[in-house]
Amino acid sequence: MSSTFGTKLKISVFGESHGQAIGVCIDGFPAGVKIDFDRLQKFLNRRAPGNHEFSTSRKEADKVEFLSGVLDGCTTGFPITCVIYNRNKRSEDYSNLQSVPRPSHADFTAEIKYKGSADMRGGGHFSGRLTAPICAAGGICLQYLEQKGIYIGSHIFSIGQVSDIPFDLANVGVGDFNTDAFPVNDENARTLMLEKISQARKEGDSLGGVIECAVIGLNAGIGNPMFDGIENKISQIVFGIPAVKGIEFGNGFDSTRLFGSQNNDEFYFDAEGNVKTATNNHGGVLGGITSGMPIVFRAAIKPTPSISVEQQSVDLSSGKNTKLIIHGRHDPCIVPRAVACVEAAAAVAICDFII
Amino acid sequence: MSSTFGTKLKISVFGESHGQAIGVCIDGFPAGVKIDFDRLQKFLNRRAPGNHEFSTSRKEADKVEFLSGVLDGCTTGFPITCVIYNRNKRSEDYSNLQSVPRPSHADFTAEIKYKGSADMRGGGHFSGRLTAPICAAGGICLQYLEQKGIYIGSHIFSIGQVSDIPFDLANVGVGDFNTDAFPVNDENARTLMLEKISQARKEGDSLGGVIECAVIGLNAGIGNPMFDGIENKISQIVFGIPAVKGIEFGNGFDSTRLFGSQNNDEFYFDAEGNVKTATNNHGGVLGGITSGMPIVFRAAIKPTPSISVEQQSVDLSSGKNTKLIIHGRHDPCIVPRAVACVEAAAAVAICDFII
Amino acid sequence: MSSTFGTKLKISVFGESHGQAIGVCIDGFPAGVKIDFDRLQKFLNRRAPGNHEFSTSRKEADKVEFLSGVLDGCTTGFPITCVIYNRNKRSEDYSNLQSVPRPSHADFTAEIKYKGSADMRGGGHFSGRLTAPICAAGGICLQYLEQKGIYIGSHIFSIGQVSDIPFDLANVGVGDFNTDAFPVNDENARTLMLEKISQARKEGDSLGGVIECAVIGLNAGIGNPMFDGIENKISQIVFGIPAVKGIEFGNGFDSTRLFGSQNNDEFYFDAEGNVKTATNNHGGVLGGITSGMPIVFRAAIKPTPSISVEQQSVDLSSGKNTKLIIHGRHDPCIVPRAVACVEAAAAVAICDFII
Amino acid sequence: MSSTFGTKLKISVFGESHGQAIGVCIDGFPAGVKIDFDRLQKFLNRRAPGNHEFSTSRKEADKVEFLSGVLDGCTTGFPITCVIYNRNKRSEDYSNLQSVPRPSHADFTAEIKYKGSADMRGGGHFSGRLTAPICAAGGICLQYLEQKGIYIGSHIFSIGQVSDIPFDLANVGVGDFNTDAFPVNDENARTLMLEKISQARKEGDSLGGVIECAVIGLNAGIGNPMFDGIENKISQIVFGIPAVKGIEFGNGFDSTRLFGSQNNDEFYFDAEGNVKTATNNHGGVLGGITSGMPIVFRAAIKPTPSISVEQQSVDLSSGKNTKLIIHGRHDPCIVPRAVACVEAAAAVAICDFII
Repeated sequence: MSSTFGTKLKISVFGESHGQAIGVCIDGFPAGVKIDFDRLQKFLNRRAPGNHEFSTSRKEADKVEFLSGVLDGCTTGFPITCVIYNRNKRSEDYSNLQSVPRPSHADFTAEIKYKGSADMRGGGHFSGRLTAPICAAGGICLQYLEQKGIYIGSHIFSIGQVSDIPFDLANVGVGDFNTDAFPVNDENARTLMLEKISQARKEGDSLGGVIECAVIGLNAGIGNPMFDGIENKISQIVFGIPAVKGIEFGNGFDSTRLFGSQNNDEFYFDAEGNVKTATNNHGGVLGGITSGMPIVFRAAIKPTPSISVEQQSVDLSSGKNTKLIIHGRHDPCIVPRAVACVEAAAAVAICDFII
Repeated sequence: MSSTFGTKLKISVFGESHGQAIGVCIDGFPAGVKIDFDRLQKFLNRRAPGNHEFSTSRKEADKVEFLSGVLDGCTTGFPITCVIYNRNKRSEDYSNLQSVPRPSHADFTAEIKYKGSADMRGGGHFSGRLTAPICAAGGICLQYLEQKGIYIGSHIFSIGQVSDIPFDLANVGVGDFNTDAFPVNDENARTLMLEKISQARKEGDSLGGVIECAVIGLNAGIGNPMFDGIENKISQIVFGIPAVKGIEFGNGFDSTRLFGSQNNDEFYFDAEGNVKTATNNHGGVLGGITSGMPIVFRAAIKPTPSISVEQQSVDLSSGKNTKLIIHGRHDPCIVPRAVACVEAAAAVAICDFII
Repeated sequence: MSSTFGTKLKISVFGESHGQAIGVCIDGFPAGVKIDFDRLQKFLNRRAPGNHEFSTSRKEADKVEFLSGVLDGCTTGFPITCVIYNRNKRSEDYSNLQSVPRPSHADFTAEIKYKGSADMRGGGHFSGRLTAPICAAGGICLQYLEQKGIYIGSHIFSIGQVSDIPFDLANVGVGDFNTDAFPVNDENARTLMLEKISQARKEGDSLGGVIECAVIGLNAGIGNPMFDGIENKISQIVFGIPAVKGIEFGNGFDSTRLFGSQNNDEFYFDAEGNVKTATNNHGGVLGGITSGMPIVFRAAIKPTPSISVEQQSVDLSSGKNTKLIIHGRHDPCIVPRAVACVEAAAAVAICDFII
Repeated sequence: MSSTFGTKLKISVFGESHGQAIGVCIDGFPAGVKIDFDRLQKFLNRRAPGNHEFSTSRKEADKVEFLSGVLDGCTTGFPITCVIYNRNKRSEDYSNLQSVPRPSHADFTAEIKYKGSADMRGGGHFSGRLTAPICAAGGICLQYLEQKGIYIGSHIFSIGQVSDIPFDLANVGVGDFNTDAFPVNDENARTLMLEKISQARKEGDSLGGVIECAVIGLNAGIGNPMFDGIENKISQIVFGIPAVKGIEFGNGFDSTRLFGSQNNDEFYFDAEGNVKTATNNHGGVLGGITSGMPIVFRAAIKPTPSISVEQQSVDLSSGKNTKLIIHGRHDPCIVPRAVACVEAAAAVAICDFII
């Protein structure tokens, strides 16, 4: 059940990087929701490769087709199946990888688990390409959420050691969201980040970063205590995005360095009589349940493990240590493309609570 | 299903801080596993309150009793139910909290979700006290894992701004684990941390911290891609521990500041012909699946929100802003007691994979 | 996860016939539902042994105690845990069964599955006694359903070859339900059935029967297509009652002997403008979804396998065929006591849809 | 989650009768299993329409295509997605059904549940056509089971009031299985059944029947007590086949008419020292767990509700009672085509236990 997520809304992601197709089956989505297919495609394009200088040169249209669940532009209440056919594959690029696992990729662990049967061409089912179906599911969920007044947006919080201006936790709003291919709030940060990425590309190296994501418009009282709270569910799905190695809510790891008197968020009634908190170090979630304040979380994306510089590895067929040089097309930094994936993941998780 | 976790091994946690009892029902645990009840009780005592200068003065024996699933010291294969009766309750301490939610507690979100019906005396089902059943389940799982050669241990990585010596990610072993009430590796750090806690107590304030946990002895090839991997499952359960606001695996957020060439973990054959990685920035998990290297993760624990200093809050009955002073017995720092909880949570998650 | 049922409402049943206690943990039940404890206890008494001439002479008060989830007579929204302590156990009665499995009991299959570790005294977790926790959960659900105008009732459809007057499928109503210890509609049938049971008891033999159960008051449109429909879910839980070997909805197996033109249920508008069907051969469910007509199903209960007459069996320790005489206290017919269990199971299943 | 089944092996069925495609996503299937595609297609052809005089004249090749999860004829361990494109649709046949629900179809209940948004052309997701993906998943599972020495077969137990020779419960074996388009053991029964079907077709009427299915080769000790036993799981999936209204195991409803001394299955050691039962009224399952004897169950299939004779219904748009004549292509008896579906369902359920 590895690639299935959710309870009330269940998504099943399928496909391999170099197989026939990738896609997702979405079970439990409500009937009668209007889908704007152009917007959905635009959302997927934010993740699609080949559109940007900072991404791989593999070009894929990533055109979503619907096999089921939609009629006359509306959801039917039946399972929705989205498919993206793989068109531009160059499996030969990966030919020398079969017995020599790439460092910090899933090649080795997959080899052990599947005993050599997995289709690992291009990373197989572990490929970052499999985030396209997550974006398809999430893109549909985002449209549904917006119809309910709930909005999800993100920015690049940092790339390498360069940081953007963070969201104002207590006041982040729709106006702070942008859907650029490279969404940052601080133009200087943008310039610096792009320089660093460009340099990494030249050196055959790669960079990671942090994505900050906010969910606004959710009422207080949504979620559950203990194992089925907002944080549990968002983290479960976000770790489904390859390369994510950490997640934190509100001021997260930073809160551990504060006193309680500094970190606590005091309540007050606002002018309309709504309960608010003056600060939002809790990131919109208390006891697994929404407080009505923006949900804010950050996901750590490790540097892309596909790099061109020579690395040490093992040859599983000969049983000897060996050197490895990875050819093929890689992103020097997948963070910009992962922004849409993080939003999509959050959207699916939130829909699983409110549907 | 908020308080139920797991697929093959399913735990259901129940109880409220000031109700009759707290406990856990464990479904799917294998038959014929010998349980050392003394060791289990000792494990729970690491979490129990009242034993240490840094913890609340509420004393609870936290004596685990078994209602089912065990016969003659062995598990039967049937659901195991552990109960801890609540003996030392002082509900009057919390009487003024009913309409005035404590900042950064779940009082407010529970009030909204349960519309006033929840038993929130002492934090109810959201209380840190509910980690005792998690420790009961986890303590049983830890014994099972040890019988399979799998060991889980932790230390206090940091409290406030004071840091312990971190685990050596690639080489952490059983010798690095200790089961002190206040487990740190660096004696200077211990002294400093205890001073800070003592000072916070005097000021009616509180401190948070980070716990670092390692799982060693797991073979490569365990786990799943995408949504049911090691990281997804551990994070889902760890966020079930109150006050956890972040989690990271391997070098986590720090990896985002490195180049791929620095962060990648090169493979090699060790003397016995096993595949190892020279470094372990991946924290033992690649593509959701174990690599055979130690699993290492860190959980961020926010400062205890229960503090004695005066705070701003709202009176939900009068609709007015008000001041709040919290009486009662609180931990100035729950991090030391949370160490066992994090180990327990990891043990339950790992058992759900290997049972 | 064998003893856990449900998605939105999750029940976990625990305990063994001769262990400390039996009970159930109920996760996901709504907050603020008033529970009438006397009524709940009376509901459990319908299932309790020792009250009737047709049941075992083992007397158990089956007194339900609440460990969690209830405050001041109302549910809190937190997991509800009900416990029934085992008081009247006579394990010695079962001593010769350990290596000689009783025919048509779970002794043999449990021995194989749990490799000798299961606590099979009195049938262990497989005992009919474990339906008491199902009745506790179901009794709570029944009260909730009644508050929503939904009623569940049953009668003994047949015992051995003696049949009661069946429910009028299209018109069964609350007036047709009775909560007798031996609920039948036809007094002649009652007399005959009791005679047959009395005779079986004298001969050390046993009888089975069929229970017919109806759910009324559910609106049309509840349920799901395919694997999560009303019939799927009710059948999944009803087969959790020991001795159930079949289930059918509407006119079930009889429908297979009719033409479509005879079996189809034609629609019409009733005087109030509601859509009804003239007949109810579909038993209130079409495509897994309620039609608004009464849900009617029948469960087949095999004759109690515990009989006093000598039987052939095997001695697993000696590897030889052997004869077996079962001592101890048994019901010659568990059908009357199973009536409440079937209602309870239906109530839990329905609550899992509408909560 | 209506169309998702399973825990370890998870299938998600999607599609509508007159949409783009129908299919299934299978998550959790083991890696390295060789698939014989020709055999799989032949298995699906047993269910396919248009091949037989007793079935609808809608011809569909029901050609299965794989989008993922298979490489070089072997499973990869990643989710397997099978798709069958819909080619021969005549939606106009169903045009007058939109506001006039067909008796004993899901038209009405779907209208209420999905508030008019469901794509109900041809029955939509409720159509018997959706059993093709179940057969695809089941056909793959059957091949896997056979590689483990486990075989599943069925026959038409009865059609209308005509009965075939039943399986010998204790001795049914692979030799008793046949894969005819119209599998019966008794040639006289075949002739009579075909006559009855032919007559029903002429009269625009329909017939139901019972399918008897056996699983042989499963070791003792597989399954679980209470809610996750063999009977619970098989019944949950079998009720996912449209028109199933009942299920029974072993001698099922008939056992309720016997004494315990008649119905109990005595144990003995056979010549090889294996524990067997002399009779198999328990149908291979005791306490939810396999006994090592053949699993035998029967599923009741109601007469196809699509008949050509005039029926009463309601016009939901006008709010008036009306007459309905259904045009289009229907099976006078779907029982023969449902045989493969029942086998497929059983195969998926068994795989969920043993994978």
